[in-house]
Amino acid sequence: MSFALAELAVRFGCALRGDPQRRVDHVAPLAAADPTALSFLANPRLTRELAGTRAGAVVLEAAQAGHCPVPALITDNPHALFARIAALLHPTAPPSAGIHPSASVAPDASVEASVEVGAFALIGSGARIGARCLVGPGCVIGAGVQVGADTRLVARVTLLPGVRLGERVLIHPGAVIGADGFGFAREGGGEWVKVPQIGGVRIGDDVEIGANSTVDRGAIEDTVIESGVKLDNLVQIGHNVHLGAHTAIAGCTGISGSTRIGARCMVGGGVGVAGHIQICDDVVIAGRTTVSGSIREPGTYASLWSAEPIARWKRIVAGLKLAARRGSGGRGERGGAG
Amino acid sequence: MSFALAELAVRFGCALRGDPQRRVDHVAPLAAADPTALSFLANPRLTRELAGTRAGAVVLEAAQAGHCPVPALITDNPHALFARIAALLHPTAPPSAGIHPSASVAPDASVEASVEVGAFALIGSGARIGARCLVGPGCVIGAGVQVGADTRLVARVTLLPGVRLGERVLIHPGAVIGADGFGFAREGGGEWVKVPQIGGVRIGDDVEIGANSTVDRGAIEDTVIESGVKLDNLVQIGHNVHLGAHTAIAGCTGISGSTRIGARCMVGGGVGVAGHIQICDDVVIAGRTTVSGSIREPGTYASLWSAEPIARWKRIVAGLKLAARRGSGGRGERGGAG
Amino acid sequence: MSFALAELAVRFGCALRGDPQRRVDHVAPLAAADPTALSFLANPRLTRELAGTRAGAVVLEAAQAGHCPVPALITDNPHALFARIAALLHPTAPPSAGIHPSASVAPDASVEASVEVGAFALIGSGARIGARCLVGPGCVIGAGVQVGADTRLVARVTLLPGVRLGERVLIHPGAVIGADGFGFAREGGGEWVKVPQIGGVRIGDDVEIGANSTVDRGAIEDTVIESGVKLDNLVQIGHNVHLGAHTAIAGCTGISGSTRIGARCMVGGGVGVAGHIQICDDVVIAGRTTVSGSIREPGTYASLWSAEPIARWKRIVAGLKLAARRGSGGRGERGGAG
Repeated sequence: MSFALAELAVRFGCALRGDPQRRVDHVAPLAAADPTALSFLANPRLTRELAGTRAGAVVLEAAQAGHCPVPALITDNPHALFARIAALLHPTAPPSAGIHPSASVAPDASVEASVEVGAFALIGSGARIGARCLVGPGCVIGAGVQVGADTRLVARVTLLPGVRLGERVLIHPGAVIGADGFGFAREGGGEWVKVPQIGGVRIGDDVEIGANSTVDRGAIEDTVIESGVKLDNLVQIGHNVHLGAHTAIAGCTGISGSTRIGARCMVGGGVGVAGHIQICDDVVIAGRTTVSGSIREPGTYASLWSAEPIARWKRIVAGLKLAARRGSGGRGERGGAG
Repeated sequence: MSFALAELAVRFGCALRGDPQRRVDHVAPLAAADPTALSFLANPRLTRELAGTRAGAVVLEAAQAGHCPVPALITDNPHALFARIAALLHPTAPPSAGIHPSASVAPDASVEASVEVGAFALIGSGARIGARCLVGPGCVIGAGVQVGADTRLVARVTLLPGVRLGERVLIHPGAVIGADGFGFAREGGGEWVKVPQIGGVRIGDDVEIGANSTVDRGAIEDTVIESGVKLDNLVQIGHNVHLGAHTAIAGCTGISGSTRIGARCMVGGGVGVAGHIQICDDVVIAGRTTVSGSIREPGTYASLWSAEPIARWKRIVAGLKLAARRGSGGRGERGGAG
Repeated sequence: MSFALAELAVRFGCALRGDPQRRVDHVAPLAAADPTALSFLANPRLTRELAGTRAGAVVLEAAQAGHCPVPALITDNPHALFARIAALLHPTAPPSAGIHPSASVAPDASVEASVEVGAFALIGSGARIGARCLVGPGCVIGAGVQVGADTRLVARVTLLPGVRLGERVLIHPGAVIGADGFGFAREGGGEWVKVPQIGGVRIGDDVEIGANSTVDRGAIEDTVIESGVKLDNLVQIGHNVHLGAHTAIAGCTGISGSTRIGARCMVGGGVGVAGHIQICDDVVIAGRTTVSGSIREPGTYASLWSAEPIARWKRIVAGLKLAARRGSGGRGERGGAG
């Protein structure tokens, strides 16, 4: 499908500089784009690439328009406009309505006629799957699970009993939603007694969950993920966590049980957040940070120490241990040898 | 199912204060409990919630009983007693004996008649599945694998050849047990030669393994997880690791190959433990800690630095680098510019 | 299968000391080996175990040969030679050509006759599977995916559309290759607009990818993993990452999007690498290190701080904060209270 720049400018309400009849049919990076491609400039460091681009058009801010050798679509937020046009040029294939002959659907499950159910998918008793959903190959949908319209479970997604998904949710392969939380009581001898995990998982609309991520069911009450939340791959969400709307969490991050994170937070990759704490709205956590206590003020927080050459790092650690002993008045550290 | 408080007190050997005929049929948090719910107080900070509870009964310590406005079950370990009663009130459904018509079971596999085998499950040649097991939908059980009685593989669990599980093991969806360890020899040019991974995995009784966790087979000898061990989600256990009985490991933690962790250890989330080291019994590792060397004394260990506002964090790092240079006598660090 | 030491010495071009007719048929550790076992000594700290071994033969360096009480195969790189002989003694079973009756293969997929396709595997439209491949049980191979000869997808591997694998690739269960990258543009109100992820994943020859690891497709251009790369379990590779040949990455490590890592790098476990940076060839990153900026010189880099007893750790942190305030001249930190 191709679109004239004039059509795009009207549809998305942005300014156009250059030939309104020029047509684009795909997206490409500035340096690789040909005259049928749409590109974008969000990072001013790429201005040199802009000067050399052969793209059909570039999405950019007004301040950069003067440097653009080809037609430009001008907007305050080039990244977002580019995303919207790219979705138009590269639409997701709609589900192909029907149930694969190998799938196993419980007789009392409610599956709209417009739903696509892939090979080897299992839909359990009493589950309800909304219109135009994709239940991809190998998915396991537990008894009583509810899935809102236009939700896409790409493949091999597991939704255990007690899970409710909103509309337009997108879950990537291998994700497991609703497994037991990690809840045990300890006996005097160190043995663990399992605390039954009987809560569910409630997920809002427009949530995306990455490959092989895990979201545990609540212990008694529900784990809650509000609308618009985005989780990357290999993210762990513990039982009874509450994630506020539009919060995004990058890969390999773990959020421990009963922690509440506000709306519009951005949590970097490889972060660890302790359990039973509160993080307010609009907090940014730098990648690899450890969050041990509540955060009550919006802002950016960090605790990472970036890599150093190993010899220098060893000197730093040795120096720091000495400085720490001095800093603490030499008490206690290594038997008080300050 | 409902139980009178008198029945519970007798069955679990605890003291009862209040109406012995009062019946409870589910568990709930203090603040949300109605008169048919059992609740518990383990955290003294919740005493205010205790004062306002409408629960049918509360499990608590004797010291708190005076503050409880409703009947109380009194014990030294409220969390453990609550867990046991909750398991009685919310029992796991027993397996529904039989093999789903879509499952694929090798003719020479030994599957007890009381076993439930779910849709699209595969049980390989020579595998042995004990009485009352659940082999959930989409599980892959390799040739020769042994699974003890009353073990539950919830869904999409992979057990590769060489794996032996004890009784009452619980494994959550997506876990992979017995994949090859990460073993390679390096050639002069940097190419890697795979070291065949021919050991197995031995897992004791009453072990729980979380969603999408991975436990590698041994290189030559077995990887061993002793009875009562609990692993959370997204935990990685390297080849030839040995985990002692009743050790618990929280999510997103990785234990590198050939490391031996003792009994009754508690390892927090997001921890990394180096390979080829020893950790003795009864060690607690705080979340997000790095363990590079052996630990020979019981106790609690940590190395995390918690998040700071980013401007403060940058000053801390700058100050620490300067302090480290002073601490090390100014030698070497950044060309000796101390 | 058993081999005489003389055959092994000729086949692998190494020196033999001892009885050339001695035969070995399996590998074992020094301490557990019987006279039909081959063992090896790569770590000089195990010299005492060498003195007591009853192995049929030991692979070792010339310098250790004098301490060996049994026949020895002598080489400059005992670990690599041992790996090669172990692969000979413990060969991987070749695929058992044929398609399991429960598998679902698209009529227009191209699957060589020598391929083994396991139970409940799905091969999508237009996919091409090379000679002697294993597509294990529960694998999902998307439309148009290309898989080179002799590649083994052990079980429950997901390859999404746009993925191309080379020859002799080995992928362990649960790995997801080609899921969407984590790409969103942010609107003024904090809502996220998905950036369509239309790139693919190109993987070279002889690559190994561990259980439950994830490799995202590129946003526009491809994510690239060059030949000989080895990834451990639970590793996350973001969109548009480029990994150079023979680079190895240990478990629980995440590489953020658009980062380029050179050839022959070794990245430890639990490492986090920021996005949009460059790491040159021949870099070693110690386990648990955070890499926030580009690395332009070969060498070893670290930023971990290993566990300390918690009381000492608290003193260290307190001392360091004080030292940092002094180091920074007392400005700003906690209101300037230096």
